Amino acid sequence: MFKRVLIANRGEIAVRIIRALREMGIESVAVYSTADRDSLFVKLADIAVCIGGPQPADSYLNIQNIVSAAVLSGADAIHPGFGFLSENAEFARVCAECGVIFIGPEAKTIELMGNKSNARSTMKKHGVPVVPGSNQSIKNIDAALEIADQIGYPVMLKAAAGGGGKGIRAIKDREDLIKKFPDAQRETKLSFDDDDMYIEKIIQSPKHVEVQVMGDSAGNILAFPERDCSLQRGHQKMVEESPCPLINPSEREYLMSVAAKAAKAINYLNTGTFEFLMDDQHHFYFMEMNTRLQVEHPITEMVTGIDLVKMQICVASGEKISLKQSDIKIHGTAIECRINSEDPVHNFLPQAGKIKSVHFPLGCPGARVDSAIENGSTIPPFYDSMIAKLIAHGSNRKEALAIMDRMLDEMSLVGVKSNLDFQQRLLHSPAVIKGNTTTDYIEKEFLPYWQAQLAEEKVG
Amino acid sequence: MFKRVLIANRGEIAVRIIRALREMGIESVAVYSTADRDSLFVKLADIAVCIGGPQPADSYLNIQNIVSAAVLSGADAIHPGFGFLSENAEFARVCAECGVIFIGPEAKTIELMGNKSNARSTMKKHGVPVVPGSNQSIKNIDAALEIADQIGYPVMLKAAAGGGGKGIRAIKDREDLIKKFPDAQRETKLSFDDDDMYIEKIIQSPKHVEVQVMGDSAGNILAFPERDCSLQRGHQKMVEESPCPLINPSEREYLMSVAAKAAKAINYLNTGTFEFLMDDQHHFYFMEMNTRLQVEHPITEMVTGIDLVKMQICVASGEKISLKQSDIKIHGTAIECRINSEDPVHNFLPQAGKIKSVHFPLGCPGARVDSAIENGSTIPPFYDSMIAKLIAHGSNRKEALAIMDRMLDEMSLVGVKSNLDFQQRLLHSPAVIKGNTTTDYIEKEFLPYWQAQLAEEKVG
Repeated sequence: MFKRVLIANRGEIAVRIIRALREMGIESVAVYSTADRDSLFVKLADIAVCIGGPQPADSYLNIQNIVSAAVLSGADAIHPGFGFLSENAEFARVCAECGVIFIGPEAKTIELMGNKSNARSTMKKHGVPVVPGSNQSIKNIDAALEIADQIGYPVMLKAAAGGGGKGIRAIKDREDLIKKFPDAQRETKLSFDDDDMYIEKIIQSPKHVEVQVMGDSAGNILAFPERDCSLQRGHQKMVEESPCPLINPSEREYLMSVAAKAAKAINYLNTGTFEFLMDDQHHFYFMEMNTRLQVEHPITEMVTGIDLVKMQICVASGEKISLKQSDIKIHGTAIECRINSEDPVHNFLPQAGKIKSVHFPLGCPGARVDSAIENGSTIPPFYDSMIAKLIAHGSNRKEALAIMDRMLDEMSLVGVKSNLDFQQRLLHSPAVIKGNTTTDYIEKEFLPYWQAQLAEEKVG
Repeated sequence: MFKRVLIANRGEIAVRIIRALREMGIESVAVYSTADRDSLFVKLADIAVCIGGPQPADSYLNIQNIVSAAVLSGADAIHPGFGFLSENAEFARVCAECGVIFIGPEAKTIELMGNKSNARSTMKKHGVPVVPGSNQSIKNIDAALEIADQIGYPVMLKAAAGGGGKGIRAIKDREDLIKKFPDAQRETKLSFDDDDMYIEKIIQSPKHVEVQVMGDSAGNILAFPERDCSLQRGHQKMVEESPCPLINPSEREYLMSVAAKAAKAINYLNTGTFEFLMDDQHHFYFMEMNTRLQVEHPITEMVTGIDLVKMQICVASGEKISLKQSDIKIHGTAIECRINSEDPVHNFLPQAGKIKSVHFPLGCPGARVDSAIENGSTIPPFYDSMIAKLIAHGSNRKEALAIMDRMLDEMSLVGVKSNLDFQQRLLHSPAVIKGNTTTDYIEKEFLPYWQAQLAEEKVG
């Protein structure tokens, strides 16, 4: 087992990893930017090394400084957390070259799954359902109509060579396709000097469900029960839960076995997550794979009783996974709310500043708080606004929601604005109580309702 | 279900109950002494009523003021917590007379089990093993020798009518009994105007193990896996764990079934705990029953996944227990350390004062903190010194100990002295790591070792 591990990250996830290391008897090395000098994660680490200025490029994205800090401090391994360099194949490669173990998948796996088109075709090859679309490039309107009629409208018309939104059109029906195809192809040709088009089904109002896997160097793979992360705003998850309230046991088994098989096929090492969209007929479509630990991993830990960060560290050190797939059981429901220093009333503008006081809603079985802050902490303006995660684990979904409601109610934060009140109102909304939210729920339905509610309270 | 519940207690357990009530959608009424005006539990409650001065007799033991506060605030029920009035039959009776439900057993059950001699004979009648002793009063040395020879030395010689330590002698062998009997009987006669004596086996260096039960008004009884509370100082538990590391599954089943049967026989309502001594041959001897929730209930909650406070409230409101005994399963090991504001170096003198700052060791699955304090809290000098409980739940005992070690290491408390460092050293001692501690371990073995350790560090 490792003697010393460097955490190439900051904030809440750095605190989380340092605690896991300490519980495993492993020394922790924090690296920090000058803006994080007085942060909790720096205080909690056994060793702390300043690696540069506040801009991420100068510190948390600075591969050379981080790997140097690892080598100089005698760290055996690096845990990248999430965000920053966690899905950077180059970083994983430099670690390996410098004799430091990267706690994550191999660089080539990160690369393979990082290219969304390669990831899609790889997954399709290994039996993972993907969004239906054209298999070959489409050269003209007749071919486009044939494919679109086949997969059913609405569809998304895209530049095959594409990216950056060029040549992309949402198509609602046959007539719409005939109308928009020429213009989209023209734009594609202009942008990429190539007029090949591509068609993909639009999954309307889907649920976001995802399956985390863990693999060891002997090829053993575990798949974990799915998480429902449909509550998003601007592609940022806000609330996650496990299991998904709308998925039945046979669907769960299907999803987990598909993920496990695909992970096995690509010799997946360490942890990663297969993200799917689920339509209202409960069809699943692979979206992408995150080749790292996710923000929402605690809800999986709560329902399964397994510490995923410790397991990551164990498999990275070469240990075999001792659990069998049949050991993975679901106990109740767990929900996570991300607490961000942001101002929901002003378009969720991130807030920097000093935490004058914070009260955490502890106690009672099932209440877990993972946090980066304490009284007197400073939130720098340079990084992600997530400062804490509240996790509620109940014997059933109703209890988990009640625990979360109590936690949101009890938590207080003075000094910076936060989304505490927004999260609590969101949890009281009928769709959340029912569990049938979709990825467009917050923006299409909840935000207008919430704004009206606030306006009404102002008048009142 | 109740609409509003009054908590006739303070500190950590009041906070715990208020949180459970909020998660159940029930309003909470705190009652507080003038010394607790700014306490966390007062802030967290929906309604708070001052019931008197700082002396317990004026407030937390003042039955009339508490029941008046319940009636005036419209509370349907009272939760007594532990300590104070929680085992006071008179209090339970007054509650009933005033139409307020007492969340606990019936007054007559509290009374029955409160008399230790009646409790012993009742338990014996219902098949619970008790400490071997004389069944009839002993009038002379010949009868004493006959009994003592039968049950085996060492024995305790006691005044049958006794109490207050009068007439009591520890007897190591036959010769010792012959020597001490006349004097003890003389003292008994002088103290109680009665010279009947009584002999009981001394259980040497026992383990303290206990089984919690829960009963509903329909006569359903659940028994929970045992807790090992052998780590005590001055009859105060310091560290508890569940399950007991030395008890095997068939012993566990035996203990749980004995407790369930006895509880059923006395129509036990709500929660209570059968306390046993276990000798080195794993014989169990009933000691006493606590007819209330216990400080250490969280470790049972963590290993079983059941919220015992919520269950207490449900059965008190007339709900039936929906779980079956076979639903009670053990997941891993949980350990609790009581954090007291006391000075271990000066004979554990309780400390009052202001908490300048406190950092709680949160995060990671399995770390739970139940606490009465926050930054700026005042610890009044009038009450128990326990201010927080750290609870660590691991997939096995080794992990639970490692989590607790991390928690003790990370927690910081500025403003009052505490037993944090003492607890951490205790957890590092070989007997605790092995799990074979007995009730005399701290005082006989650990304290001298610890004092020597401190002295050495001072010299160093």
